[in-house]
Amino acid sequence: MALPFRALFLGPAGENAQIVEDFILEALRDHVFWRRNFHPEDGPFIRESDKRSEAYDASLMRLRQELYYLLSRLKQGAPLFSPRYIAHMTSDVLISSLVGYFAAMLYNPNNISEEAAPVTTELELEVGKQLARLVGYGPQAWGHLTSGGSVANLEALWAVRGIKFFAPAAAMVARELDLPDLPLKRADGKLTTLQAMTPWELMNVPLESVLKLREHLLRMPDPQILRRLDACSVASRGMLGFYRAFERAFDAPLPEPVLLVPATKHYSWVKTMDLLGGGREQIIELPLDEHYRIDPEAFRAMLEDLAASEVPVLGLVAVLGSTETGTVDEIHRLMEVKRSATRLGMDFYCHVDGAYGGYATARFRDPQGQWVKGPYDRAAAASFEALPETDSITIDPHKLGYSPYPAGALVFRDQRIREFLTVDAPYVFHEEDEPHATIGKYIVEGSKPGAAAAAVWINHRVLPLDTTGYGALISNTISCARMLRDALASHRSPEGIRLIPLNEPDLNLVTFIALPPDVGTHADLNRFNEEVYKRFAIHPNRRVFSYEFLLSKTAFDVKKYARGLHTRLDPQVWSMLEEGRPLTVLRSTIMNPFTKDMIEEGAFFSELLEALDREMRDAHGLVFGASKALEAR
Amino acid sequence: MALPFRALFLGPAGENAQIVEDFILEALRDHVFWRRNFHPEDGPFIRESDKRSEAYDASLMRLRQELYYLLSRLKQGAPLFSPRYIAHMTSDVLISSLVGYFAAMLYNPNNISEEAAPVTTELELEVGKQLARLVGYGPQAWGHLTSGGSVANLEALWAVRGIKFFAPAAAMVARELDLPDLPLKRADGKLTTLQAMTPWELMNVPLESVLKLREHLLRMPDPQILRRLDACSVASRGMLGFYRAFERAFDAPLPEPVLLVPATKHYSWVKTMDLLGGGREQIIELPLDEHYRIDPEAFRAMLEDLAASEVPVLGLVAVLGSTETGTVDEIHRLMEVKRSATRLGMDFYCHVDGAYGGYATARFRDPQGQWVKGPYDRAAAASFEALPETDSITIDPHKLGYSPYPAGALVFRDQRIREFLTVDAPYVFHEEDEPHATIGKYIVEGSKPGAAAAAVWINHRVLPLDTTGYGALISNTISCARMLRDALASHRSPEGIRLIPLNEPDLNLVTFIALPPDVGTHADLNRFNEEVYKRFAIHPNRRVFSYEFLLSKTAFDVKKYARGLHTRLDPQVWSMLEEGRPLTVLRSTIMNPFTKDMIEEGAFFSELLEALDREMRDAHGLVFGASKALEAR
Repeated sequence: MALPFRALFLGPAGENAQIVEDFILEALRDHVFWRRNFHPEDGPFIRESDKRSEAYDASLMRLRQELYYLLSRLKQGAPLFSPRYIAHMTSDVLISSLVGYFAAMLYNPNNISEEAAPVTTELELEVGKQLARLVGYGPQAWGHLTSGGSVANLEALWAVRGIKFFAPAAAMVARELDLPDLPLKRADGKLTTLQAMTPWELMNVPLESVLKLREHLLRMPDPQILRRLDACSVASRGMLGFYRAFERAFDAPLPEPVLLVPATKHYSWVKTMDLLGGGREQIIELPLDEHYRIDPEAFRAMLEDLAASEVPVLGLVAVLGSTETGTVDEIHRLMEVKRSATRLGMDFYCHVDGAYGGYATARFRDPQGQWVKGPYDRAAAASFEALPETDSITIDPHKLGYSPYPAGALVFRDQRIREFLTVDAPYVFHEEDEPHATIGKYIVEGSKPGAAAAAVWINHRVLPLDTTGYGALISNTISCARMLRDALASHRSPEGIRLIPLNEPDLNLVTFIALPPDVGTHADLNRFNEEVYKRFAIHPNRRVFSYEFLLSKTAFDVKKYARGLHTRLDPQVWSMLEEGRPLTVLRSTIMNPFTKDMIEEGAFFSELLEALDREMRDAHGLVFGASKALEAR
Repeated sequence: MALPFRALFLGPAGENAQIVEDFILEALRDHVFWRRNFHPEDGPFIRESDKRSEAYDASLMRLRQELYYLLSRLKQGAPLFSPRYIAHMTSDVLISSLVGYFAAMLYNPNNISEEAAPVTTELELEVGKQLARLVGYGPQAWGHLTSGGSVANLEALWAVRGIKFFAPAAAMVARELDLPDLPLKRADGKLTTLQAMTPWELMNVPLESVLKLREHLLRMPDPQILRRLDACSVASRGMLGFYRAFERAFDAPLPEPVLLVPATKHYSWVKTMDLLGGGREQIIELPLDEHYRIDPEAFRAMLEDLAASEVPVLGLVAVLGSTETGTVDEIHRLMEVKRSATRLGMDFYCHVDGAYGGYATARFRDPQGQWVKGPYDRAAAASFEALPETDSITIDPHKLGYSPYPAGALVFRDQRIREFLTVDAPYVFHEEDEPHATIGKYIVEGSKPGAAAAAVWINHRVLPLDTTGYGALISNTISCARMLRDALASHRSPEGIRLIPLNEPDLNLVTFIALPPDVGTHADLNRFNEEVYKRFAIHPNRRVFSYEFLLSKTAFDVKKYARGLHTRLDPQVWSMLEEGRPLTVLRSTIMNPFTKDMIEEGAFFSELLEALDREMRDAHGLVFGASKALEAR
């Protein structure tokens, strides 16, 4: 098998243990002897006689004792390394990132600034560039690492808020300081001036025009302008003060913008709007089609409705791999709708939540960096191909990047966007003739591990972000997920319990329900699937080695997922569902690079289905009792 | 030397390399053979024949090549391990956390939920309890880890916002649903009802009463109440919608609250208020006394002013170790002022930013958990002793906890406070008969490294959070900082350049300026200190092994730091300072456990002062040219 990863993972049976051992020791010794070369005249500090003291021995004893205790506790951890773990989107990590993280952790750099982390800050910015290239952003892009997707999404929306309210803030300043007319483009492309814009137009200035307006204002000679721009910003005044000031200045209300997200709505968006003081109420969910993707026509209709009532859009969030079903939104179609909305006078930011699916872009990029459609996924390819049209993207190296936690990333298409996030800390960021590239100025977090940057950076060097590297690895797991879907669909348990797949995998995630022939109500269906789930889920009181396989679950909102469910369920099951009750769904992510081996050897599906049959039988007895329907079969 | 740490650090010359090597190998092998015991019948997946394939060899070559390249790049990292690194608040980490992080990283647990990380989630909650005990919170406390202090502070203020606006939200719901009178305490302790409260009173309900009101409302039989409470919350409506709804409902404005922070104001508070949509303008800086601590009398006067104009306080942030000067606010005195403000009808939340200084509480706790004043620091002891009166605290294990990045922590005095943060994710948090302790429900972040929890947890087991462990270690470094301060103060360079310490260390941080005899202006003084700083600061183009010592710098706002500067500077220097110009200050944090050894051997101060003399002479020539004043000496 020519796949490029057999040497790159520790392996489900630790087959590459010797490689890891060698490198870990090499990294450790390399670091130790590095230490010894910095002012050798100072040492040694810990003398051999110290090592023979009682105090030393006592603390060494304690260290050893507690480490053994920790090692023994860790053994009850989830077996993420095994192809039998097909639950959440996590798996084994690449050896390169394991060793890279460890090697850098010995130096313990803090990527808040290059002064505290001269090397790993550079590595982080290189990673940002690599991810920008991957998704097709140009040389003006800027990216960095975060602790995870939630923080990346928060940061993106923080920037979006600053951008959306920039033109209204500038309009206040222009009026206050009686500035000369400032030319500015409206959403429909017509040139007008900042001063002539209506509140609705101010909330729909195209991103590029906002960026240019800002640059123009900053170049104006009057230093007062910069100070007033800062003082009038939403960052300074807060949401409430900003709106009040605008209404005072213009004697007209500023319309409040809404955030558009797919109805699959990851909870981090709810959290983010809450955090930013925008309010969860200002989130509008876009209806899903039968593949659980945003329905572009519903999106178009929504924009028309919003335009008709002059409700501006803060931003659109498109999803590259939803956490529930791994669904990839049709970004190309959404962008087309977005473009056409300019004739309605609307313009807005587009952020892609590719925390899960961002790395899958590597399936469409050849080693020369050129776009390739590949033999597969015409629809998906078009989605990924449209990424350069979006404004920013969240990508988590700790998901399909096969890096250890913590590693999320945010990439802006245009580095000028990050200026909307700047807060200065005088003792960390030095402005006068600054030789350093700072990251801390532009982020939600403060101190952050440089080791994470080293881990992601070396992964990208070892496994290229193209069809020969990550592309091949991820395609391998997607094909497993598709095989799993088919295997579930064609299976029939001895008791006649069916497994109904609820999605066709865009990525490596399969959802399904187990459907006994005698189930009569939505509540019973849920109870049964809950019982099945419990048998495949980590429980603190069950030995981890006793599991055959591990699965996860999720809950579908029946109303939001209606089109997909209606398509995939028998009319009799569909009619059983209650709109107000979530549907409990079994969920399986195949991320392990070795699952395909196990499938090809024939063991994987037979053992999984056997385990499911056994547990379903057991769950059935518990939920329904000794059912006549099943006995009769 | 009986100090409890000689076996616990790798050592400036890697003296304990063998211990680390043994444990790292033990952890790795323990993990590898754990893997091999989970369904051994499945493996091996990587065969010996694979290892002889060309593809395997090619990727192994790549792995090895890139690791060597990474190792070589890392060597330009900052020598944090050395006693010569006295710049930022970072140093070597405890071996226990290094090995603990590595051991857990092999399992790669995600502490978003116990299902994804059954072991390390428990460890994280244990750490939360340990830190709660350390600061003296009771058994009702709840704490967890974050990626760092910035996120912990954000999370705390997010909770504070939810709490502050809870009573007004409840009042809206009570009116809307025409609820019976709900008894509620005012800030002054008088019992009234929610319905009878004025907007000002609603913004000053004591925390305990808010918590009880919430519990009471949640227990009421009408399910409508819970739904409306959620819909009317600031989380749901956003700042703007919330205020508008209140004004509609009560035909009276709700006063906008302000956040009180010390004038040393860490930039994370600015960022946090911006993020939360509260606005940086709503931050009020409390004046500093001559030790750069919040002046309690100024705090009292501020509260009286605010009460007079009915401006409510969102919360008070007291600081346990400011990042600029390591100053510890007098929490006991601030709490006394806060209590006395209840007679003004004011009540508010108190958060402690102990990101830096939180661990220093261990200096005052004996191994039985009892409070000890110790022979030192009467004033500081009183500050730390008052911590149980506060509502939450940020503590960073990656600072004085000697753990690797990322490890911040947030502890709430009362676990009910976390309920103000809840956002549910259906596929991660399962509500029905849930055996798991979830963390992800209550935090800003999503996925997060369980390895960080293992690292902090084992540190606390190996080095106790009391006078025998962390207390002794931190006291050791504080005494070094005080010696450094004295050494600087008494030094006179051959050219007559003086070193003026600008603080007496509450923690292990010293600030100072270098003052040439011939400096005449504030700008020149800054230029000179910038030049000195540059010679001790990591620069990307200078070999890291060429440094004698490493220092950091900060900038004092002359107006805010006036009392402390006025006390410590000669009248002639003081009169030179311009109020609008920041004062460039050299800054040194001594965190290294082995600095004291180097001091005791006599080398440390003589070499440091010699290096300072040399570089100051050089900087002087550059800034002032061949100065007559100096030649004449």
